[in-house]
Amino acid sequence: MLLIQVVGYKNSGKTTLASRLIKLYADKGIRVASLKHHGHGGVPIGIEDTDSEKHRQAGAVLSGVEGGGVFQLATKQPLDVDKMIAFYELFDIEVVVIEGYKKLNFDKIVLIRNEDDLHLLKLSNIKAVVTSIPIKQTDSYPIFKNQTDVCGWIDQQFPR
Amino acid sequence: MLLIQVVGYKNSGKTTLASRLIKLYADKGIRVASLKHHGHGGVPIGIEDTDSEKHRQAGAVLSGVEGGGVFQLATKQPLDVDKMIAFYELFDIEVVVIEGYKKLNFDKIVLIRNEDDLHLLKLSNIKAVVTSIPIKQTDSYPIFKNQTDVCGWIDQQFPR
Repeated sequence: MLLIQVVGYKNSGKTTLASRLIKLYADKGIRVASLKHHGHGGVPIGIEDTDSEKHRQAGAVLSGVEGGGVFQLATKQPLDVDKMIAFYELFDIEVVVIEGYKKLNFDKIVLIRNEDDLHLLKLSNIKAVVTSIPIKQTDSYPIFKNQTDVCGWIDQQFPR
Repeated sequence: MLLIQVVGYKNSGKTTLASRLIKLYADKGIRVASLKHHGHGGVPIGIEDTDSEKHRQAGAVLSGVEGGGVFQLATKQPLDVDKMIAFYELFDIEVVVIEGYKKLNFDKIVLIRNEDDLHLLKLSNIKAVVTSIPIKQTDSYPIFKNQTDVCGWIDQQFPR
């Protein structure tokens, strides 16, 4: 399973790039999944209103509700990305596009909006950078001016 | 891992009994989880508004969003309960209280509200029935008049 992270600050275009990469892989017939970190604090959705919240309050370590193609799990402790990836493996996923989780150590595409974001270049395992500002070329990774260019580069690596 | 289903029609008290069982196990220090089928149609929550919906529309087989102790996964195909249980196993869960999914084959507590519900007694693996209406005793399972009595019976089986 190939894991690829899209990393950058708010409004850097992470969701747009992640969606483009997903489409790129899906169009090749590759089984692609996505995983996004919800960085705005609080719960992603209105789970407080659901019965599974009653289960959680009764002491359930995990409380899940499933239906209509959605599975929603509340946990008493933070969820390791490793566990979610292990779950994805049950579905024969070939590529996971991960949005956020910049501290993780998977291959990364980093989106740089401006000078304030340059410290993101200290992250581990950077495979490509996308930015419209001038930054110093290194031997470590290619730099692309826009999302179309980085998608073209990824496309070439998966000729299927 | 012990799997126990709570089965019955709407307003039969499934969520209340499931929550009581969860509390019973949790109070004994058992790592208990819950899984509920959302039987009202449609998605459990407002995932349409989220970025993960963009991922799904781009072609992701699975699109997950995680944060604040909640993991929400949208799938293109129905999710097997077996896969969710396999996920739970990663968390060293000892007991899963399953609400709904009456067609599944795990041990069941069946809630009967009235004569219209009696056909639920044809389900597989019934271990106990809770009902306030008179029903014929069988050798197959005990019949309890209320949730307190069935919880007491379950409690005796887990002296920890």
